[in-house]
Amino acid sequence: MCGIFGVFGHPDAARFTYLGLYALQHRGQESAGIVSSDGKRLYREGGMGLVADVFDSPAIFDKLPGTAATGQVRYSTCGASVASNIQPLMLHSRFGPLAVAHNGNIPNAEVIRDGLLARGVNFTSSTDTESILHLLSRADALSMLDAIKEAFLKLRGAYALLIQTTDRVYLARDIYGFRPLVLGRFASSGGYAFGSETCAFDLVGADYLREIAAGEIVELRSGEEPRSVFLTPAQIGARCVFEHEYFARPDSMVFGLSVGQMRYAFGRQLAREAPAAADVVVPVPDSGIKAALGYAAESGIPFDFGLIRNHYVGRTFIEPRDAIRHFGVRVKLNADRSVIGGRRVALIDDSIVRCTTGPKIVLMAREAGAREVHVRISSPPFVSRCHYGIDTPTDGELIASAKSVEEIRQALGADSLQYLSLEGMHAVVSEGGAGWCDACFTRNYPVPVT
Amino acid sequence: MCGIFGVFGHPDAARFTYLGLYALQHRGQESAGIVSSDGKRLYREGGMGLVADVFDSPAIFDKLPGTAATGQVRYSTCGASVASNIQPLMLHSRFGPLAVAHNGNIPNAEVIRDGLLARGVNFTSSTDTESILHLLSRADALSMLDAIKEAFLKLRGAYALLIQTTDRVYLARDIYGFRPLVLGRFASSGGYAFGSETCAFDLVGADYLREIAAGEIVELRSGEEPRSVFLTPAQIGARCVFEHEYFARPDSMVFGLSVGQMRYAFGRQLAREAPAAADVVVPVPDSGIKAALGYAAESGIPFDFGLIRNHYVGRTFIEPRDAIRHFGVRVKLNADRSVIGGRRVALIDDSIVRCTTGPKIVLMAREAGAREVHVRISSPPFVSRCHYGIDTPTDGELIASAKSVEEIRQALGADSLQYLSLEGMHAVVSEGGAGWCDACFTRNYPVPVT
Amino acid sequence: MCGIFGVFGHPDAARFTYLGLYALQHRGQESAGIVSSDGKRLYREGGMGLVADVFDSPAIFDKLPGTAATGQVRYSTCGASVASNIQPLMLHSRFGPLAVAHNGNIPNAEVIRDGLLARGVNFTSSTDTESILHLLSRADALSMLDAIKEAFLKLRGAYALLIQTTDRVYLARDIYGFRPLVLGRFASSGGYAFGSETCAFDLVGADYLREIAAGEIVELRSGEEPRSVFLTPAQIGARCVFEHEYFARPDSMVFGLSVGQMRYAFGRQLAREAPAAADVVVPVPDSGIKAALGYAAESGIPFDFGLIRNHYVGRTFIEPRDAIRHFGVRVKLNADRSVIGGRRVALIDDSIVRCTTGPKIVLMAREAGAREVHVRISSPPFVSRCHYGIDTPTDGELIASAKSVEEIRQALGADSLQYLSLEGMHAVVSEGGAGWCDACFTRNYPVPVT
Amino acid sequence: MCGIFGVFGHPDAARFTYLGLYALQHRGQESAGIVSSDGKRLYREGGMGLVADVFDSPAIFDKLPGTAATGQVRYSTCGASVASNIQPLMLHSRFGPLAVAHNGNIPNAEVIRDGLLARGVNFTSSTDTESILHLLSRADALSMLDAIKEAFLKLRGAYALLIQTTDRVYLARDIYGFRPLVLGRFASSGGYAFGSETCAFDLVGADYLREIAAGEIVELRSGEEPRSVFLTPAQIGARCVFEHEYFARPDSMVFGLSVGQMRYAFGRQLAREAPAAADVVVPVPDSGIKAALGYAAESGIPFDFGLIRNHYVGRTFIEPRDAIRHFGVRVKLNADRSVIGGRRVALIDDSIVRCTTGPKIVLMAREAGAREVHVRISSPPFVSRCHYGIDTPTDGELIASAKSVEEIRQALGADSLQYLSLEGMHAVVSEGGAGWCDACFTRNYPVPVT
Repeated sequence: MCGIFGVFGHPDAARFTYLGLYALQHRGQESAGIVSSDGKRLYREGGMGLVADVFDSPAIFDKLPGTAATGQVRYSTCGASVASNIQPLMLHSRFGPLAVAHNGNIPNAEVIRDGLLARGVNFTSSTDTESILHLLSRADALSMLDAIKEAFLKLRGAYALLIQTTDRVYLARDIYGFRPLVLGRFASSGGYAFGSETCAFDLVGADYLREIAAGEIVELRSGEEPRSVFLTPAQIGARCVFEHEYFARPDSMVFGLSVGQMRYAFGRQLAREAPAAADVVVPVPDSGIKAALGYAAESGIPFDFGLIRNHYVGRTFIEPRDAIRHFGVRVKLNADRSVIGGRRVALIDDSIVRCTTGPKIVLMAREAGAREVHVRISSPPFVSRCHYGIDTPTDGELIASAKSVEEIRQALGADSLQYLSLEGMHAVVSEGGAGWCDACFTRNYPVPVT
Repeated sequence: MCGIFGVFGHPDAARFTYLGLYALQHRGQESAGIVSSDGKRLYREGGMGLVADVFDSPAIFDKLPGTAATGQVRYSTCGASVASNIQPLMLHSRFGPLAVAHNGNIPNAEVIRDGLLARGVNFTSSTDTESILHLLSRADALSMLDAIKEAFLKLRGAYALLIQTTDRVYLARDIYGFRPLVLGRFASSGGYAFGSETCAFDLVGADYLREIAAGEIVELRSGEEPRSVFLTPAQIGARCVFEHEYFARPDSMVFGLSVGQMRYAFGRQLAREAPAAADVVVPVPDSGIKAALGYAAESGIPFDFGLIRNHYVGRTFIEPRDAIRHFGVRVKLNADRSVIGGRRVALIDDSIVRCTTGPKIVLMAREAGAREVHVRISSPPFVSRCHYGIDTPTDGELIASAKSVEEIRQALGADSLQYLSLEGMHAVVSEGGAGWCDACFTRNYPVPVT
Repeated sequence: MCGIFGVFGHPDAARFTYLGLYALQHRGQESAGIVSSDGKRLYREGGMGLVADVFDSPAIFDKLPGTAATGQVRYSTCGASVASNIQPLMLHSRFGPLAVAHNGNIPNAEVIRDGLLARGVNFTSSTDTESILHLLSRADALSMLDAIKEAFLKLRGAYALLIQTTDRVYLARDIYGFRPLVLGRFASSGGYAFGSETCAFDLVGADYLREIAAGEIVELRSGEEPRSVFLTPAQIGARCVFEHEYFARPDSMVFGLSVGQMRYAFGRQLAREAPAAADVVVPVPDSGIKAALGYAAESGIPFDFGLIRNHYVGRTFIEPRDAIRHFGVRVKLNADRSVIGGRRVALIDDSIVRCTTGPKIVLMAREAGAREVHVRISSPPFVSRCHYGIDTPTDGELIASAKSVEEIRQALGADSLQYLSLEGMHAVVSEGGAGWCDACFTRNYPVPVT
Repeated sequence: MCGIFGVFGHPDAARFTYLGLYALQHRGQESAGIVSSDGKRLYREGGMGLVADVFDSPAIFDKLPGTAATGQVRYSTCGASVASNIQPLMLHSRFGPLAVAHNGNIPNAEVIRDGLLARGVNFTSSTDTESILHLLSRADALSMLDAIKEAFLKLRGAYALLIQTTDRVYLARDIYGFRPLVLGRFASSGGYAFGSETCAFDLVGADYLREIAAGEIVELRSGEEPRSVFLTPAQIGARCVFEHEYFARPDSMVFGLSVGQMRYAFGRQLAREAPAAADVVVPVPDSGIKAALGYAAESGIPFDFGLIRNHYVGRTFIEPRDAIRHFGVRVKLNADRSVIGGRRVALIDDSIVRCTTGPKIVLMAREAGAREVHVRISSPPFVSRCHYGIDTPTDGELIASAKSVEEIRQALGADSLQYLSLEGMHAVVSEGGAGWCDACFTRNYPVPVT
């Protein structure tokens, strides 16, 4: 679970990369880093924590000069949550200084790492990403672009990557296209922006050009048009449906489709499949809002905010010793009795993962006077973990992996529970063309995960 | 603009006060402080910044022992934004240590202060609140409760106050009842909670009992029932209508009325008075959401989120040198083209103060493809500053103070602009009884201000 | 135990005050503060900790504008070690803003405070100093200078004071002259410097003019010569001999005498009174160095550093769990076997207070191979606590209060122990004239202490 | 310029390593780091700054478990002053996690690094030390000890090294023995301590056993006696004479000799070679103290402290805008007029490097009344930079590289200047046996420096 962003050919490269990461913060809150280049050297700044905490003074940007920059926000899917794993990872190599920002997961990374270690390679981090860098430097190819192709053919998996040298940036997506990567351009000043989602373009003022294709490698180089090559002649589409269900921001375009519109459509479809005898449609904020709007529109039941989100939630939250019931949820959400009291509530969320928060929310709704609580989920049951870059619990922790819908309803304490059907979901996304990965709902993994 | 909160008779007094302040954080982000009492001494901790930054480690609560505590979050209406003005203010007096947390404004505070200075009194802060403490200690009355009455009769203005001694806490509201103050009780463990709004009770798990009356002083004392006295035989109702329009949280009860329901009703009334030929009703988040829901329900036009709020906005935000158009607004909000594009938008907000952000939002909507933008405001034009505790600009900075609705529309760049009428607003709030201050909309000040 | 310093009539007033406090840091490491004036307002900055930690960036001095400043470093003799007691204390008064920096102790402060509290005065701190400010503001006198005289006549005790208003600074010493206060001038640029010791003048580049007299009040005012008045017609000399024995820096002039020369003379006198059959004279650094040089010169025994002081001692020092013998002393001092090994050592220090460190040093010397350890102390036995501003333990904790010299020798584990005689000490200081307080060695208190 | 220290086989390994580094802080103030091992993993903590600032809370040691630890304090001789260069450097290798702490300099490091880069090795830091780690992992040898020998034979230069694996620690010195490395043992609890100087043993309570020999590699392994092998049959002695002249602490044993006694002897020899017609011998503290004592003893001229060092010098020192003469020196030193005034002063220091501070000190002495100032230096003229691990300016910045003694005297503004002769220095150190590097005084470099 990561967000990547970068800028090429713009005097505000590092500042804009900071803004882009800021807009992509929902993709990773654990660490943030930026590498910039002035054509001669690479410069790197980063730290553990949120973007605004890591880059907390304008002076930092004086240490990131140049017209090219790449950055990453990270939530660890592999590799511990430690400072040595902050990305972009930067090493000195035969190509000069080299930085990589990575969104994805390489299922055969451990095998590759063990092979490299045995051959005398030392590792500074515990990330997948470092293996990629060592493969690059050890490739027989002499040019960087050829070395990338040689190295990438050894990788099995899901990745969107930014590779930066002192004078170039390479954008790459795996041949399945699991993770998104979009390209944009600054209309006024020239130069390119690129990253995981288009919402970052809106913040920096870049125009969306296109999605990088599955298996494509784009080379950005000063004074030349972007140059595009492909890893293999044929590509296989396996776009992550969960980006649309849950992960991406609703105001982003991902895989060429509006995330908000998709969620709204999931909600409409859910209302058709799973109507509820309710007086009010209430979203679990913020994840369930768009689906709830669709559900309300389709069903004709009024939409309202019965759960209010606290905007000042900080990082360190001090619990009272005299434990208050459902304290953890109360800090983030408060049920509004004036909306819920005495009513039958259709409670809409995008997914149920571990089923730890849900029961507390249902109970909170009942304590605020809800007469009935009907839970509706705008995706199919989440039955199996992701091996392609979304941080999910192990299967044993996924409640839908082992329990029936009725058992989950009981765990929630809801009056009824219904999910969007697999067919219903596909009916919605198929408008965006074929080629989706739905392994988390079906266990059909497009790439072997050993 | 402040929030006050406290707990009496509970072993988690300081921790719960922290949580209460946290829930009231929207009322003041400048500083936070807590005073606790163990029956023998008062203890004080506080600092500049947000609650979660000031109270950032559990160890702080070991320095705030005892079963009684009072706290405040502050946005300065008088007195500079400096550490010496952090509240609760604490001084050593003939009554022993004494702490005061204050929400409100005392228009004759300067006259009182000058009189005290001339008589040899020294001041440590520049707040209204310190004058109250000196009046208390200099009162002829020997008992604390009598001294409070004697002192308060010299004050002209708007306040809700918490006064803490080593063994008691006093709750007080001025005779106009401008600012809210509610009392609650812990069902399980006994003890009382009290503060500006009921949303804080929801977080700490206290039950709402009642609003403290205008002119009432309640004394809380260990082992005894709360004792209530009144400053004067008759009280004058002048409840701040702006608490309902804008200031309080939608999930709070204020003056015995649900804030969310009031805002929803303002939106309905607005739709009746000022319909719009629009395809979608879009709120300016979060302030306009409830009114927009009411507007959509009454008008039948679909509600949707066309402006997405960024949840990770930090305190220090670094601007790019190459200024992006409307950057300041973009950091907080992003227009979603998939909602707004090609549509006629009814844009709902609760008020227009300086009219600095509005034009940027309207332009952002147009750039995202809106065909028409019809702005609807769920309160009457804000024409005159508040002297009773809401931090507002001077009249010269209030756009509605000097300009017509048509001129404001032009400033906004909107296709149309309409406000809720004064009569419409009163029709809504009159359901909560008579006795409101609407000076910011009418210039009818219930208490002389010079 | 405090140091005070200030500057009047110089564009670098606050920066120079910072430097002066820095040079006086040995007089107080608990907190540091500076108040400056630009003729219209007073500005205050300060905090707990060392001068260099409190004033840790040049930007702070932008917040301390103007050509006059006063400052203090503090070690609490009365009043808790808390932020509210940081000096200079500043309050708003009928004279405008008023700041006081205080070095000394007022034995009747508690009686004065209780009287003020009963009359309705509130206190913000727990210091002696605040009572002085309230007495000033409540004086019948209309002018500041008269108010100072009126207020000071109520004080019993030992003080050197700096009082600052927006346009003036007052320097004052009590009628006994317990604590030092010196006046200097900037030759190049005009303006005055003043403070506890002359070593601060050396750092800021001011020339020493004279000691402020006992009972004198000097008013500094822009464009006029310093004006001097006296509290009473007659003064009583009771200069603190311990300033010369222990407290002041050796490179300072105090009471018109070189501290280093006095200590050297104490050491010579000690060698005459208490010779030792030793091979090397070793000081306990840094307090015993000057006396050890005198002792070595008079006795003809070679001087050497057998105990090395660690210069990097930080504030938080982490102890090993597996406690090392005498760890606390080892962190600060290390015995050098190449100096001490196989030798008879005359170990020179300025005083023995609680006798907690001494035994560890003697043992450390023996472990490094010393054949004999003869301890010589360059002052008489310290038998009674100071009530005039030096922070000392209670009499019960002073080892010489209850134990004989032979018993102390046993506690030290030394082969012999001898102190400088009272007569010997007076023979040395009498060269500086009569009028000394030696209460800590004799229990003869010049001012009643209860 | 670095200090290294470690502990093997002791439950307080990391805490003791912290203490050892603390005692060696004079060898490097730029960064500090510790790696510990619990037999299964390595743990690493470190940062930029002083030991006491990097390890500023006891909680850090909970993150450094186990009974073995190595640490380093660093002043960069190669590699930038950046966080990625903090040592011990730690990488994951075919031997498992591997940490190295390095004191010294490898003149052929760049050639080695370029060769490794060309062969596809990536570097994370810019230090010499990382090349050593890559050579180790790429060695043909299968065992660690053989790999060390294989790798080290490629290194040309000066080093004392600590290499740590999960279950062992290796101590190594180059075949010239430029830099010191001593071994000690804990008498009470068993286990070993090792590091740059013996003063660290005194602090942790370990007994000095012996110096590691030039070219020796010692393997420490749980449950076995230390095992010692040699890199080559024959070794070449080239011990750094500057460790004794300047760098090491006077209370340390270095190369089996007391540093303090050597400096005292340099002072005596200097007095014989270069007498001065002076009234007082004054050291430049602290570097010149031991030589000044020797000079005074030999010459019969009294020793005294005429320059007082300020103990509270912090890291950030704010300069006044109105520059005071010689401010930079004044902050650290103050001339004591009572010692120097009217006298002829013999001013003793250990060396003159750039000659920037010296002229200020001489002038300060004159301003405090010195009649004559005779500078005597206890080492020969410093003419050429060190290539073996002491951080020195380039030859162009070394005043003695280009100027005569008379020219330097004029630069100092002294009445006379004399250095210790090369022969005199060798006469002193030859008591410790043959085999010294004196290249900084003679330009005779034992190892080619290209």
